[in-house]
Amino acid sequence: MISQARLEQIKEFEDKIGYTFNDKSLIDVAFTHSSYTNEAKIKAKSNERLEFLGDSVLDLVVSEVLFKNYNNKPEGWLTKTRSRLVCTDSFAKASEKYDLTSYLNFGKGEKQHGGQLKKHVKADTFEAVCAAIYLDAGFAYLYKFLVENYMEDAKEIIDDDTIFNDYKTKLQEYHNAHDKKILRYTLVKQEGPEHDKLFTMQVKVGNKVLATGIGKNKKKAEQDAAKNAYERIKND
Amino acid sequence: MISQARLEQIKEFEDKIGYTFNDKSLIDVAFTHSSYTNEAKIKAKSNERLEFLGDSVLDLVVSEVLFKNYNNKPEGWLTKTRSRLVCTDSFAKASEKYDLTSYLNFGKGEKQHGGQLKKHVKADTFEAVCAAIYLDAGFAYLYKFLVENYMEDAKEIIDDDTIFNDYKTKLQEYHNAHDKKILRYTLVKQEGPEHDKLFTMQVKVGNKVLATGIGKNKKKAEQDAAKNAYERIKND
Repeated sequence: MISQARLEQIKEFEDKIGYTFNDKSLIDVAFTHSSYTNEAKIKAKSNERLEFLGDSVLDLVVSEVLFKNYNNKPEGWLTKTRSRLVCTDSFAKASEKYDLTSYLNFGKGEKQHGGQLKKHVKADTFEAVCAAIYLDAGFAYLYKFLVENYMEDAKEIIDDDTIFNDYKTKLQEYHNAHDKKILRYTLVKQEGPEHDKLFTMQVKVGNKVLATGIGKNKKKAEQDAAKNAYERIKND
Repeated sequence: MISQARLEQIKEFEDKIGYTFNDKSLIDVAFTHSSYTNEAKIKAKSNERLEFLGDSVLDLVVSEVLFKNYNNKPEGWLTKTRSRLVCTDSFAKASEKYDLTSYLNFGKGEKQHGGQLKKHVKADTFEAVCAAIYLDAGFAYLYKFLVENYMEDAKEIIDDDTIFNDYKTKLQEYHNAHDKKILRYTLVKQEGPEHDKLFTMQVKVGNKVLATGIGKNKKKAEQDAAKNAYERIKND
């Protein structure tokens, strides 16, 4: 039996995501960390088995989104991009959107150690919740839910090709081979409101400015500057 | 356009598996190896992108079968068992059941090198065909198809727990610690027809028979003998 307090908590979550579970025990289990069931006197289920299923469900959703929306991309690109989307970092971020770990039943020990703040706990909870939605509402609903709520974040990861094109490294390698001088990156400008900042960085050799670049954080602006400098060199 | 000869080949396959594709191009692509499209003058699609999708679909089918049919198994068991089912060996075997690679369009080079006999080519083709069924008929149909056609083979892999309980090693370790004597396994009996043989092995220390065991091959019979001997020791 699920307590009244717990049902109210579940209701709050349902309102947040806009979905009402037919089987409340599914989402109750999804929000039950193994540290809770290990401590509890009563025999309760933890979300570990749901995590197992959720991992596979998310893998398929991501694969299908990539397969259907990126018609011209080869298998190698699909596989690399999937591995950047189906990972702890990306799932932990997704978990934060609805603050999933705030609904978790924890054991006292784990709670004191800040379990809800741990990246892998966040990611695991996201997997378990997705499995609960999958079992309760079916694949098509989960697919739609994820596309509607996460496609924008996913696109940012998909479009962010800096992992494959590390221009800072390329540019440094070029300069190592040519004039052995060290490249320096400096912040030129920082503008916009807190949640939507834009950074401008410049890359120099000695006092010579090679290029500037912009980005939503310093790292991206540096990569952009390096890219611009590198492409200029290549075209010389 | 798919040639008449190719359509007849597809029809033969459809009759074999008892499913008719709405979109013949899906199964045509699933049966097109990249070596063919690399050689072909016309721009054709190979099955690599379908493999990518099929890998994820099969992962979910296997996960769901395990999740729903093994209620009491913990997450660790589920994960280990899934990895033994979702692998090249297991998919290559599944591919052999319908001789999938005999339908593959190969490049001449790959054909001469016996491409259709390669384990990974067999496994890849199985993934691609499953993706084609998934896209054409939906998840529920593919799930049912795989359970009906492969559950028995899967059960054999699932039940074969010798990988996790290597009793020969356990028994040898026990004897190393106790009387340092080497264990010997000998064949006692071999019975039954060629395709359904049963082996009886015994395990000895010196001239003392510790136990006998049976199995469908010598290895399994040895493990069974070791298990029986080990469990007798433990209960002493």
